[in-house]
This record gives sequence, C-alpha cells and structure tokens, in this order.
Amino acid sequence: MSFEIERKFLVINAGWRDYIEAETRLIQGYLTASGPVTVRVRLDATQAYLTLKSATTGISRREFEYPIPFADAETLLRELAVLPLIEKTRYRVRHGRHLWDLDVFVGENAGLVLAELELEHVAETFERPAWLGAEVSADPRYFNSQLAQHPYCRWEQSEQS
Amino acid sequence: MSFEIERKFLVINAGWRDYIEAETRLIQGYLTASGPVTVRVRLDATQAYLTLKSATTGISRREFEYPIPFADAETLLRELAVLPLIEKTRYRVRHGRHLWDLDVFVGENAGLVLAELELEHVAETFERPAWLGAEVSADPRYFNSQLAQHPYCRWEQSEQS
Repeated sequence: MSFEIERKFLVINAGWRDYIEAETRLIQGYLTASGPVTVRVRLDATQAYLTLKSATTGISRREFEYPIPFADAETLLRELAVLPLIEKTRYRVRHGRHLWDLDVFVGENAGLVLAELELEHVAETFERPAWLGAEVSADPRYFNSQLAQHPYCRWEQSEQS
Repeated sequence: MSFEIERKFLVINAGWRDYIEAETRLIQGYLTASGPVTVRVRLDATQAYLTLKSATTGISRREFEYPIPFADAETLLRELAVLPLIEKTRYRVRHGRHLWDLDVFVGENAGLVLAELELEHVAETFERPAWLGAEVSADPRYFNSQLAQHPYCRWEQSEQS
C-alpha cells in the first residue's frame, strides 16, 4: 500500500515531444462504476496489474497495486470491465528534476492529452513546463474511471478544451 | 482464474456438528456495493486474499483470487470496505464424498447459518445431509456481499427462516 499524490493538467502544445525518454502503450479498464474504491485492470506490453485506489477528493489517495497473470487481466478486461476500455500511449517526459507522464489517448478518448505528475509530498513544488495548461486534478471528467464511462468523443465541443 | 460453481442452503439443525473436520475464523468485506464484479477482501488467521467474482445469476461464476499482504487487507477492511464487515466461523464438514462449508455468522449477521457446497460441474449430484434446509443459491439476500449491506439482524422476523 502507498499513498499516491498526483496532479493532472491539460497540455497546450506539443513542445514536450522533444523530451520523451520512454513510451508504453497502456490498455486499462475499471471493474467498478462507483463506490469508495476504483478497481483498475491495466495491461502494458508485458505485464498486468490490478490496482485499487480510494475514491477521495484532492490530490492524495491510497493505492494498492498487485501484479496479476496477463491472461487474467485479458479476461477481466474482455468480460467484466466497464466499456469502452481506456487506451493510451504514455510518454515519460523530463522537465527539470521531474519526470512527467504524458498520456495521449486513442480510441473513444482520442484528442485528449493529459500530463500527470506524481509527487512525494502534497506541498512539493515543481517547475511548470511551457507546454502545461490548466490543472484538472479535481475535475472528475478527467478521471480515467470517468473517461471509461463518458469518453472524450461524447463530450460537448464546448467542454473539449 | 477459475469458475466457481457453488450451491448454498439453509441449515435446519445442528447435526453437522458431529462431523467437523476443521474450522477457521473469517473476516471479510466488500469494496464494491454494486456493479458487474464483487471485490472481496478476506482475512483468515494467517492469510489475506483479494477476490474478484463476476456478479452473475445462477450457481456458476468467474472467480479470480490473489494473495495480498496481511497489512494491506487490514487497511482495506478498516478504511475502504462497506460496513458492517462479515464475520463468521467456517466449519469444514464431511458428508458422503463431499466436504461442505458451514458458515456460522457472528456480529450483525448472528443467528444465520449457511451451508455451501462447491461443485466441479453444474450438474454434479450430491447426497443431501439430514441437517440441510432449503436451497438459497439464487436468493440475493444471502449473498455475502448483500449481508454486508443489509445484515441478518436488520431483516424482518418473518424473513429469518
């Protein structure tokens, strides 16, 4: 168990692409639509994880992550997850002393790019890159669990920033 | 991943107590109140498990079970599970060629005793012990996930059989 402290932002230009250090394709789905905990199944190219996160407000929440067999994850995503699944490419991007995760969504969330920064402490400071837009940490529309139920392609045009 | 095929019955007398082969105290809680999957955290005296089961009707459903650290399970039950938790002593009881689980509930479900039989096949036959009452496999009131939300002590007296 750990605490996850994470801040999430919109992205206003592609300047981050010059600083990519790694990339991974992720497919993930949620086994719960609501409740005190989100239950996520995530597959990358080689591994699968089951992750429980407390559904709290604010930027800090409890996280429990367990590796599970790849075949279990495939079955869970195929048969039991809320559809559509979330598919995205995650780019690891350096800025100053921090490594950011830039998530470029595909499928039903295509068009959406989010930047996430995991912090050690709630009050930890960081340099704002020039490509960083508005913070959306507290906006439930941008929770991945919500994007699975109400994907970006179904948002009103006025909502898509 | 496996398929769990389980039949559940009421218990009409204590005749089973002469055939106990083992007993374990179980504490369990649910991280989801509804949805396509139930997510259970269970502690016995020495081990902890996270178990996902498809919320299907009928006696067969998918089950995925993973051992997790004892401390994680304690935190999940204390902070994130639906209350009240389910507490029960599970007796392993032999009858003919089958081993039954007799669950004697305590706490807010005190008074309830259920017999469960796990089968290899949906059509598998078994001998009915003299202590066996009506089948409740399909009655949602007796699902452990439901007993966590609507415990036996809050049932109408006419419902308590």
